[in-house]
Amino acid sequence: MVGRGLFITFEGTDGAGKTTQIQRLSRDLKNANYDVCLTREPGGTLISEQIRDMLLNPDHSEMAATTELLLYAASRAQHVSEVIKPALTEGKIVISSRFADATVVYQGYGRGLDLDRINYLNWMATDGVTPDVTFVLDLPVVIGLQRVQKSRGGLDRLEREKIEFHQRLRDGYRALAQQEPQRLKIIDAQATPDQVYAQIQAIIQPLLQK
Amino acid sequence: MVGRGLFITFEGTDGAGKTTQIQRLSRDLKNANYDVCLTREPGGTLISEQIRDMLLNPDHSEMAATTELLLYAASRAQHVSEVIKPALTEGKIVISSRFADATVVYQGYGRGLDLDRINYLNWMATDGVTPDVTFVLDLPVVIGLQRVQKSRGGLDRLEREKIEFHQRLRDGYRALAQQEPQRLKIIDAQATPDQVYAQIQAIIQPLLQK
Repeated sequence: MVGRGLFITFEGTDGAGKTTQIQRLSRDLKNANYDVCLTREPGGTLISEQIRDMLLNPDHSEMAATTELLLYAASRAQHVSEVIKPALTEGKIVISSRFADATVVYQGYGRGLDLDRINYLNWMATDGVTPDVTFVLDLPVVIGLQRVQKSRGGLDRLEREKIEFHQRLRDGYRALAQQEPQRLKIIDAQATPDQVYAQIQAIIQPLLQK
Repeated sequence: MVGRGLFITFEGTDGAGKTTQIQRLSRDLKNANYDVCLTREPGGTLISEQIRDMLLNPDHSEMAATTELLLYAASRAQHVSEVIKPALTEGKIVISSRFADATVVYQGYGRGLDLDRINYLNWMATDGVTPDVTFVLDLPVVIGLQRVQKSRGGLDRLEREKIEFHQRLRDGYRALAQQEPQRLKIIDAQATPDQVYAQIQAIIQPLLQK
């Protein structure tokens, strides 16, 4: 923890409902007179958003895997330095949609890039800032993809690959939660939004008392 | 060395005459029927040039030092992967104006950033590609600055700071040359362009015979 603030991150694969939960939590904390800083990765600052645009630009198919890793780290370094660290120092509650764990899971577990390199870059980019609590919204891969795609028929080859990739992501988040059970909390995201929120509240409330 | 190519880099502070020497060497090698790939850092690819634009954008005064280091590394990783490594594999002579040593010297020796971090990022970004020879065009700082500024009166505070900074750069390049005397060659850049070129030729010719 930096300063007197509280740093909360949300992680999870697509369709797990991060946005819904973050908006509700943020609103309730603000109503309870907490000073809330809502942010996201990749992005969160002008420079980070420019890097995000480079990363997501479909014309950049020639981008090397190492370049991508370094750009994610650069974006995160700026986000930490310009937004997260100052807000925590001022005692705010910072809520970020995705943070360093996402790179470990998507680039490491998902795409098979070297975990030592990813961990080193995260160490450099986060500058000692670690979330106080990380909610991993967890649900079976097929249900998550169905939520995103809404309706669909059978699975074609690309969709099967997508399922295998998302399965590695889910396994990755679970592996991280086993390594750091005090920080990463697996939340059953198959439940209704109200039930999911109740799980989050049960963990947040004791932290707010401190 | 990668493949059968030859990788030559030029380093040195502003005003040392890198561009003049690179253009002459490149022209002579082409006339001798060598396949030459001329490139530069930061830049050298579309993605790297976009990163260069971000680095040089005067509106980005809020950019954190770590962000800057990571962006230089990302730009270099793309340059190596997309341009330098393929050209060397095809047996070309690659000549780059600045490369990994420049980050060690400018960010490390010049601005005092952690050398271990810089070396790790260079290791990651260069992916095993090391120059066969690096020419360090060396000259007294005041002469280099005078060449850049053409004519000027006395030194104001900013100019004095500039001199101290450039002195650290010069010392940095000399320190690297002491660490790797086989690769880094200090060239006396106070001499006339013809004399400088003769020093470079004396080192290049034996490498071309191999």
